[in-house]
Amino acid sequence: MDLHGAFHVYDTTLRDGAQQEGLNLSVADKLSIARQLDGLGVGYIEGGWPGANPKDTEFFRRAAQELDLRHAKLAAFGATRKAGVRAADDPQVAALRDSGAGVVTLVAKSHDRHVELALRTTLEENLEMIRDTVSHLKAEGQQVFLDAEHFFDGYRANRDYALEVLRTAYGAGAEVIALCDTNGGMLPPWVSDVVHDVIESTGVRVGIHCHNDTGCAVANTLAAVDAGATHVQGCINGYGERTGNADLISVVANLELKLDREVLPAGLLKESTRIAHAVAEVTNFPPASRQPYVGTSAFAHKAGLHASAIKVDPNLYQHMDPVGVGNDMRLLISDMAGRASIELKGKELGFDLSGDRELVGRVTARVKELEQRGYTFEAADASFELLLVEEAEGTRPSYFEVESWRVITETLTHAQAGEEAVSEATVKLKAADVRYVVTGEGNGPVNALDSALRTAIVQAFPEVAKFELIDYKVRILDQGHGTDAITRVLIETTDGESSWVTVGVGHNVIEASWGALVDGLTYGLRRHHVD
Amino acid sequence: MDLHGAFHVYDTTLRDGAQQEGLNLSVADKLSIARQLDGLGVGYIEGGWPGANPKDTEFFRRAAQELDLRHAKLAAFGATRKAGVRAADDPQVAALRDSGAGVVTLVAKSHDRHVELALRTTLEENLEMIRDTVSHLKAEGQQVFLDAEHFFDGYRANRDYALEVLRTAYGAGAEVIALCDTNGGMLPPWVSDVVHDVIESTGVRVGIHCHNDTGCAVANTLAAVDAGATHVQGCINGYGERTGNADLISVVANLELKLDREVLPAGLLKESTRIAHAVAEVTNFPPASRQPYVGTSAFAHKAGLHASAIKVDPNLYQHMDPVGVGNDMRLLISDMAGRASIELKGKELGFDLSGDRELVGRVTARVKELEQRGYTFEAADASFELLLVEEAEGTRPSYFEVESWRVITETLTHAQAGEEAVSEATVKLKAADVRYVVTGEGNGPVNALDSALRTAIVQAFPEVAKFELIDYKVRILDQGHGTDAITRVLIETTDGESSWVTVGVGHNVIEASWGALVDGLTYGLRRHHVD
Repeated sequence: MDLHGAFHVYDTTLRDGAQQEGLNLSVADKLSIARQLDGLGVGYIEGGWPGANPKDTEFFRRAAQELDLRHAKLAAFGATRKAGVRAADDPQVAALRDSGAGVVTLVAKSHDRHVELALRTTLEENLEMIRDTVSHLKAEGQQVFLDAEHFFDGYRANRDYALEVLRTAYGAGAEVIALCDTNGGMLPPWVSDVVHDVIESTGVRVGIHCHNDTGCAVANTLAAVDAGATHVQGCINGYGERTGNADLISVVANLELKLDREVLPAGLLKESTRIAHAVAEVTNFPPASRQPYVGTSAFAHKAGLHASAIKVDPNLYQHMDPVGVGNDMRLLISDMAGRASIELKGKELGFDLSGDRELVGRVTARVKELEQRGYTFEAADASFELLLVEEAEGTRPSYFEVESWRVITETLTHAQAGEEAVSEATVKLKAADVRYVVTGEGNGPVNALDSALRTAIVQAFPEVAKFELIDYKVRILDQGHGTDAITRVLIETTDGESSWVTVGVGHNVIEASWGALVDGLTYGLRRHHVD
Repeated sequence: MDLHGAFHVYDTTLRDGAQQEGLNLSVADKLSIARQLDGLGVGYIEGGWPGANPKDTEFFRRAAQELDLRHAKLAAFGATRKAGVRAADDPQVAALRDSGAGVVTLVAKSHDRHVELALRTTLEENLEMIRDTVSHLKAEGQQVFLDAEHFFDGYRANRDYALEVLRTAYGAGAEVIALCDTNGGMLPPWVSDVVHDVIESTGVRVGIHCHNDTGCAVANTLAAVDAGATHVQGCINGYGERTGNADLISVVANLELKLDREVLPAGLLKESTRIAHAVAEVTNFPPASRQPYVGTSAFAHKAGLHASAIKVDPNLYQHMDPVGVGNDMRLLISDMAGRASIELKGKELGFDLSGDRELVGRVTARVKELEQRGYTFEAADASFELLLVEEAEGTRPSYFEVESWRVITETLTHAQAGEEAVSEATVKLKAADVRYVVTGEGNGPVNALDSALRTAIVQAFPEVAKFELIDYKVRILDQGHGTDAITRVLIETTDGESSWVTVGVGHNVIEASWGALVDGLTYGLRRHHVD
């Protein structure tokens, strides 16, 4: 399918997305994300503003050498020429021209007030800036798109001028005019009306660029498409300035699955969950669990009644089969869980509990009791599995006996800036009838304990050398601001092939972490010994 | 205004919201949230399912005695009677009747397949269950609403039956029929068409209940209102099963600010930011920074060009004045910050830097350098202020000289379950020419260090006795899975009146925490000494 022809999926994660609070992308991050976006099959990747932003100049330079994109074309973003200067003489325009990107997306003011107050020039000169810059870049061999900044507000303030901006850009050779709801204040019916008018009055090819300030960015985007837009802009995972841009994944999933429009290469929508999470890893911005389609909670069912129905037919409580976006259905074990939830969860983990009502009852009761004490099994499948095994076999799996542990962090005598302290843990335990006293170091107390613990048991169990702690979450429950607060820790461990999550609870955060660490190792060891 | 008359704002945070993964509300939590919701001025608070859920039975019992609601009426949620039993004889229906809530919201199947597979009864019996339960509760003096579960899917599968369900409930005395997009698969134009048809064909009073599985819950809700619905359901902060319910704050803010409909008591929309965050505190589910209207990032501006324009007029980059929802505009200091951002941020913090270009230049350069090393000032205003003062006055404020610190956590000799370890910190420092060696205890290393540090300086500075650590965030940067990773810590301190955030960076997480702790105390002391 022609991703650069009849319908455009245009991603601006690396430019508009990077303007989100908390996002800080290096050039290496950007290249990595670009590869992921290409894996999803988007038609265009807006890489940044070369010339204005040194990091972005570097990105385009390295992209030309290192990126081997299968689907996407790279686009350079930038402004129209400065007032009173010729486009051919404007160094910022030259940077766009020379960036190596095959497409340039120019942002131009389409709101008269912005022309006067922000650009501080005349309405006529602004049109000339657009005409000049677009035609210059076209003459130099670039494909040009135009972002009509603040379009919807500008249309309301001065419809004639806003439309004139569009005609000017289109007439000069811009192939798509993306109408931008820059301040994000629009609602779907208004977008629909404006897009209809624009197409009828000017005949330009319309794109749409929405922000989520009213919570309607995705709906606004779909409304524009419904009214005739054939180019959608957004950011993966809804990154972006303030409340974010339209979540491009929701947009393409809705277009393909709900509106039967093929906008990605065949089969790539299935990759969206994997890609969404891979990009989140790079951005280091924790993914929203409730994110539509790809969030970890998107197909997670908690209510006991929902579980009972799902036992009959998953479609009774899901709007689609999650496999279409590469996601999974999950049953949550909580105090809302009933026997059906426990049975289905057990089945998910490979245990057939359907024949043993008494066991299911005991597990259900144990889960509710532990949840009262602060445990959660919702996100700690490995701990839940250990509980199942303990109830089914009568004893909890155990590979070592802990005597004691301690961990100390202290300032170094000859400290350097940024390297002022070290953490050291000492663990005493017995494994395979041998007593070990081991000290480990780390960049924090939990890291040091993990190191000491694994070193202590590696002689008896060499496989733990491959284990690694990859995620760590702490939550203080019953925030009573005192030492009676309960701390809950979730730890994710990997053996290089797969990973698992365990939970620990205690009054002391290190104690809770220790519990999760021990469970994490126990689960990993059991896997290796049972398989 | 009559919150229970012409237009209903109906909150289901305590029932549907509680079905969200990661949410675990105690009865005390629910009572606390109910008070907050009442503070926002919602007309109805769905408290839970008394009879089916023991926690909820308890909630309604205590609510009757302890809740003094000014605006909201409490609603009890529950199912229609069981097949083949009379409503008057069904104990679950009795629990609803006797809950003490003035309103009962019954959930009924309106999708023929659900009647057959989930309820396992006939289509006729389902209508009788609805008719019987609604009229029974009406006769017993309750106000009754009906949630038509799976309505939109049921309408598509069997329109006649779905409409018959509505007529039956309405005819039996249900005052509102809320059409539920239970599986969340709808888009706004479809909702609009269905609601128009329902109103035209049945004349019932329509309510709307949407989930966010397509990312359009808010837009779907608004589309329903536009088509004639006069009752909106949702959850504060968009909590709820799977991807969540429609975010009730976005819904009411859009209705009031964009569609000029008065749906809350006058002046209460301004409380939404405070209330949204207060509820998030109780749920212990971290608020989404990008949440529309009330998120901390909702009016946060990062791009240097945006800051330059905002210096001229904030409305150039905001769709509304954040004061309308009780939020603030924030300038973000990042590597995208230019001089304009620094100047505006300084002004926000009370420093007039407009006359000193050289100082602004030095601060801008220092910020960029520190950000390269892992610091972030985006969310750490207090650390940024200390930096400003340091550059402006030549030396960084300092009230004590630290010699060394150490913290140890170890298992107790006579341990009890859940109380197995204690953390102990020793700090050596000089304050007001006196040397102190102090040991403090805590429920974790940082807590113990904070305790020791404050005890060490309280004799020289008695005001620190009021200071308290209230929030703590850790992020590992450049996740290189090794000891070369940088850790960044953000700490929030309060003196009982206001609070401030400081940042610390280091290779060791405790070292980074120490840096943020020291800055937190320094900032607090400076405030008390300067004011």
